[in-house]
Amino acid sequence: MDNRPIGFLDSGVGGLTVVKELMRQLPDEEVVYIGDSSRAPYGPRPAEQIRQFTWEMVKFLQSKNVKMIVFACNTATAVAWEEVKAALDIPVLGVILPGASAAIKATENGKIGIIGTAMTIKSDIYRQKVQLLSPNLAVTSLACPKFVPIVESNETSSSVAKKIVYETLKPLVGRVDTLILGCTHYPLLRPIIQNVMGQDVKLIDSGAECVRDISVLLNYFEINRERTQLYKAHSFFTTASSQAFDAIAENWLKMPVKSRTINL
Amino acid sequence: MDNRPIGFLDSGVGGLTVVKELMRQLPDEEVVYIGDSSRAPYGPRPAEQIRQFTWEMVKFLQSKNVKMIVFACNTATAVAWEEVKAALDIPVLGVILPGASAAIKATENGKIGIIGTAMTIKSDIYRQKVQLLSPNLAVTSLACPKFVPIVESNETSSSVAKKIVYETLKPLVGRVDTLILGCTHYPLLRPIIQNVMGQDVKLIDSGAECVRDISVLLNYFEINRERTQLYKAHSFFTTASSQAFDAIAENWLKMPVKSRTINL
Repeated sequence: MDNRPIGFLDSGVGGLTVVKELMRQLPDEEVVYIGDSSRAPYGPRPAEQIRQFTWEMVKFLQSKNVKMIVFACNTATAVAWEEVKAALDIPVLGVILPGASAAIKATENGKIGIIGTAMTIKSDIYRQKVQLLSPNLAVTSLACPKFVPIVESNETSSSVAKKIVYETLKPLVGRVDTLILGCTHYPLLRPIIQNVMGQDVKLIDSGAECVRDISVLLNYFEINRERTQLYKAHSFFTTASSQAFDAIAENWLKMPVKSRTINL
Repeated sequence: MDNRPIGFLDSGVGGLTVVKELMRQLPDEEVVYIGDSSRAPYGPRPAEQIRQFTWEMVKFLQSKNVKMIVFACNTATAVAWEEVKAALDIPVLGVILPGASAAIKATENGKIGIIGTAMTIKSDIYRQKVQLLSPNLAVTSLACPKFVPIVESNETSSSVAKKIVYETLKPLVGRVDTLILGCTHYPLLRPIIQNVMGQDVKLIDSGAECVRDISVLLNYFEINRERTQLYKAHSFFTTASSQAFDAIAENWLKMPVKSRTINL
């Protein structure tokens, strides 16, 4: 057993979709969250910069004495997960392999779509992982650079959002039976994405899939938190406005959130 | 990626229930199986002897160059899993934590039953793991020493089997809403157990639960087998009669099995 918190990092608020699923599946675990909203989106940045920003968040979480770090960010996972996992002596999870595995299981016609930030799509990592495990699957990738800014500005139900999602996803409609939401911000746009893609298309939430892996690794490394009356306090940190962060977080997590603004 | 096989060990044929689930969920993985039927059941043996026999199987599997070892045996897991896991540099999985976690999620009235061999029940490990994670759950344990011999002698549908299961489980009927099959042999008796306990009682197959963990750890350690046209050959070894092993294995796995008899 290990009663220390689990650390989550993301370029902004997208990783909250992973935290929400964690709170549902593993309600006894404590969370420390860092979102780098002042430098979001990560997607269009050069890999070396993403790598540096990710390490800054990793070091911040280490200073909070976390027992595990979750890259709740596909872009950071694509660029720096393997390197950080190899360097740390605590478990480090990414969101890409869980998402890729779930999509392979979900597809029936063998046609999988992947949407993500420019960097995630450019890295080609989802296609590589899917086809390494399952070479006969057809994988269509599409970068959606406008989605993260919509979510970070809390406009996920505006008519502009609907128009952007519709126009961006048009090339994929009717071409896949399974779509990986390869960015943790995208579940906040899920109703619109589902509507555009059609109700039959299976949407794979890479962050939610990752929580299953968190649960298994807590067991494997024997670091579950005890289900006791111990005081539990989640902590949220952002590099931008805490008010803006709290508005999105409270709406998404359905609980009061008081984040703190920090510099990395 | 790692195309080496996964090693499974059990006191006899019970671990085949884990292999069957593996073949369903992860059909591309290759299996090396060792069942120590000549010395089964392990349940009534002293812990030190079980520990020694388990290490003999572990060393046999290591000689077959496996990439991961699965303790497909609750008794061996209770006695030696932590020690072997700490000693080896490949992942070593047991069946107890996956089973305990699944039961915690499944129960609605907070009353969990656990059945297993004499050693598994005496070790008290299931109750400890369940209550460490969830102290408010009521756990009732029951040793079923007659079940493994029924399975090893391939008499799982005889009227004697029905009578023994009925008489053994009587103390649990009506007292739990979830029952952990804390021995990998027991799923072979599942229809009878379900009938005796009632259709509403959730039976937790510790071995099947464990396959979910295998999948996650293959991802985490990046040691999945490639889904290619590579030749794949499962190998089965037993310390007793290969004919007797094959009869049970072919009936359970629905595929031709040609095991080899070895001495450990």
